Amino acid sequence: MSKMNAIVMQDGAVNVQQVPIPEPQAGQVLVRSLACGICGSDLHITRHSSEVFDFYRKLGVMPNSLDDHTSVMLGHEFCAEIVKFGPDTQQTLATGRRVTSVPILLSQNGAGVGVTPGLSGAYSEYFILDEALLLPVPEHLPSEAVALTEPLAVGLHAANRSGICIGDTALVVGCGPIGLAVISALHSRGVSNIIAADLQGHKLQLAGDFGATQVVNPSEHDEVTFAAESAAGKRLVIFECVGQHTLVDRLIRRAPVNATIVVAGIHTATSSINYGYATVKELDLRFSYYYQPHEFSECLEALAQGKIPWQKLLTGKVGIDCVSDAFKLLLAPNNHIKVVIEPWRNGELVHL
Amino acid sequence: MSKMNAIVMQDGAVNVQQVPIPEPQAGQVLVRSLACGICGSDLHITRHSSEVFDFYRKLGVMPNSLDDHTSVMLGHEFCAEIVKFGPDTQQTLATGRRVTSVPILLSQNGAGVGVTPGLSGAYSEYFILDEALLLPVPEHLPSEAVALTEPLAVGLHAANRSGICIGDTALVVGCGPIGLAVISALHSRGVSNIIAADLQGHKLQLAGDFGATQVVNPSEHDEVTFAAESAAGKRLVIFECVGQHTLVDRLIRRAPVNATIVVAGIHTATSSINYGYATVKELDLRFSYYYQPHEFSECLEALAQGKIPWQKLLTGKVGIDCVSDAFKLLLAPNNHIKVVIEPWRNGELVHL
Repeated sequence: MSKMNAIVMQDGAVNVQQVPIPEPQAGQVLVRSLACGICGSDLHITRHSSEVFDFYRKLGVMPNSLDDHTSVMLGHEFCAEIVKFGPDTQQTLATGRRVTSVPILLSQNGAGVGVTPGLSGAYSEYFILDEALLLPVPEHLPSEAVALTEPLAVGLHAANRSGICIGDTALVVGCGPIGLAVISALHSRGVSNIIAADLQGHKLQLAGDFGATQVVNPSEHDEVTFAAESAAGKRLVIFECVGQHTLVDRLIRRAPVNATIVVAGIHTATSSINYGYATVKELDLRFSYYYQPHEFSECLEALAQGKIPWQKLLTGKVGIDCVSDAFKLLLAPNNHIKVVIEPWRNGELVHL
Repeated sequence: MSKMNAIVMQDGAVNVQQVPIPEPQAGQVLVRSLACGICGSDLHITRHSSEVFDFYRKLGVMPNSLDDHTSVMLGHEFCAEIVKFGPDTQQTLATGRRVTSVPILLSQNGAGVGVTPGLSGAYSEYFILDEALLLPVPEHLPSEAVALTEPLAVGLHAANRSGICIGDTALVVGCGPIGLAVISALHSRGVSNIIAADLQGHKLQLAGDFGATQVVNPSEHDEVTFAAESAAGKRLVIFECVGQHTLVDRLIRRAPVNATIVVAGIHTATSSINYGYATVKELDLRFSYYYQPHEFSECLEALAQGKIPWQKLLTGKVGIDCVSDAFKLLLAPNNHIKVVIEPWRNGELVHL
């Protein structure tokens, strides 16, 4: 048990490698990955690794000594089971118990699981978590559903960051996992006018399943004009959930007076913007990134209570040996919402 | 009385021209300008008229038929006296009564006084206001003080837009008229930690007179780092009052986690921005433009009650024949805060 299979991202490619199984340190546990979602940010870092590393170095979260060929073991949306406790642990949960966690190690200065060079991620067979952050998972909830907790929390956090009131109108641009999570959160908060926009018809249908009350295809109608008319003078809150950085300026140019734009997509490239449009319309731009632990727990609870039709998010499953092929497929235009890796087995991508 | 002197901005220059005295229409009054401040936006439109007109046309507030040689009669920070009432007016104020107003004509679809091609501005000897928007001016308040109401309202509005709480820390970057107005408003709202930043020492001294509790010269210390340390983990609200569009991205890069940046400067150029920094720190960007009538009234009231050391804002006065020279001086680096035009007289710029 000294080596394991891990998915390693390096130089824009993901491949299986044999790496040492990590050893849990004080306060940590070794867990076995049961299911891990492929996140849009995993695809982004793979496609734009130099740009992202450059950004990380400027932020000061990655040492300048690490160059663009640095490897990262991906995976931060997971369900896992406890394998082994490190020193100084309480051990109130039994070995074999299924758990999830916010993907952070407070025991290592808040390093992110699945994004930090040198740390194991949840695409690997085994990885490390903080015991203090473990959330036990209800027996009846499948592991692939638990793995959806994290993107749902991203959406809930974006909804909470917006300061939306139930009488406001929401426009959610982009109905991938994050857009659908935002719609689900807005619906749970009682927002009555939720407009979903996406170029793909099947995503608009899903948006309705998650709580959207109106849908618009930007290839047929300008989605911002549509939403502004529907808002009829009430505040419009626009959620950017596409992750396409030139979209922000286009939203700013079209947004109605006093609109709020929540940028939930992650952008590491330099964009152009004309602030004048934001000024004369007195827009608010709120940037949303990372949920709080209580938001993460709320999403796990909502999944456990059957409040979220999670089966509709899950469009594929793949074994560890075929992750590289799955990435190639997902980096091109495709119809998937969420593909989950099961690192404990081999097997091609199966459409669900 | 059929012709008057007016200051006309055209092709990047301001000059005196003889133009017809406008005739008040239904609900309007003709007023005589007693004092009118030179605003940073007047300098901006003069320096960048093609860029601003292009922006206006894209916004749809200026017809495409008007080209870059279009002229504008400037002046929107004023004190005036009533000369003549148009039809359908109540005439509750007497002719000769001193007044001010938000610089908007609701009687002409909300056209802005001093910025709209074809409308007379307050740099002219006479101009038009809506009777319904007139605010009578207290006898004891000099006309040049009344002319400061408008920039003070811009600052008060920016402070109100920020949603700042008294326990937060404010950093006001740029201590021209708007920055000082923001500081004054924050002070009146009871914010206890107000940090002023400016490259000019005499402006930092003024900032203290208006309520800044700490000052920092960015040539000596990084102003954002200084403010973040002073905030000591509490929310930092940064006010961009320089009007230098590349500053916004530099503020975003340096701002601490969860900071709010209020963009009070007016920017019509295309800027570069890396949203990634705003995302990982979950920043709010709030764009502030135009006050509400109640904010304008509050500033006039504060001036009347002696709560604002307005004399310290006023650094120059100039007659109508020397406005062109004054603009040349103000478009170059200078030490002025606010220069007021007295369109009813001739005379060189006098430093106060």
